[in-house]
Amino acid sequence: MVEQRLAQLDNTFHALSDPTRRAMLRNLSVHERSVGELAAPFRMSLAAASKHIKVLERAGLVRREVKGRTHVCRLDAKPLSEVKDWLQYYERFWSERLDVLEALLREDAPTPPSSPRKKGRSR
Amino acid sequence: MVEQRLAQLDNTFHALSDPTRRAMLRNLSVHERSVGELAAPFRMSLAAASKHIKVLERAGLVRREVKGRTHVCRLDAKPLSEVKDWLQYYERFWSERLDVLEALLREDAPTPPSSPRKKGRSR
Repeated sequence: MVEQRLAQLDNTFHALSDPTRRAMLRNLSVHERSVGELAAPFRMSLAAASKHIKVLERAGLVRREVKGRTHVCRLDAKPLSEVKDWLQYYERFWSERLDVLEALLREDAPTPPSSPRKKGRSR
Repeated sequence: MVEQRLAQLDNTFHALSDPTRRAMLRNLSVHERSVGELAAPFRMSLAAASKHIKVLERAGLVRREVKGRTHVCRLDAKPLSEVKDWLQYYERFWSERLDVLEALLREDAPTPPSSPRKKGRSR
């Protein structure tokens, strides 16, 4: 089970590591497309585009349905939600960076004039 | 600028597409490590481990500092925050799936008995 999930992540990250494949996903996010429609915006052969689509399919990011002579491709975002789950653990690290930055900015900011009747902000 | 960001994403996704490299990042999230310490948990040569570390460095996920004869590696999570930004656009797609699931579950749930004196939940 864990092995399977690891392999799934491998496939998803590999599929996302190419700008053509990311552009295809973006295109599918607007509407389902035939293989020809998906390939059209790129300067590459249909065979090359088809190879990219296969990588996306292996990652489960694209579902293909055969309708007569047309292959219709659809986006499946589920593997992306697994990437998000994987990322979540690391979120603390960039949040910490932001906290440090915020603290530095606060140190640089001029001290607000003290008002004896109001409670001051603790620093 | 856009080209650079695309290449950055390519490198980051490529670096994350391997379970050894993801395990190394996890290890670095606990503490900084020497190259030898990073390589130790894996059944591979130091040269092979070093190759993986170089891929992580190219993606900006690992920073290496030379301290005398030791190379100390540290995690830099910034490229991961860029992955999260990229993912955000697709979040609606798995949220929609959850909404559909929730709606289906709600349809299956028994209707709560109506109470004339209390305001009912609008459905």
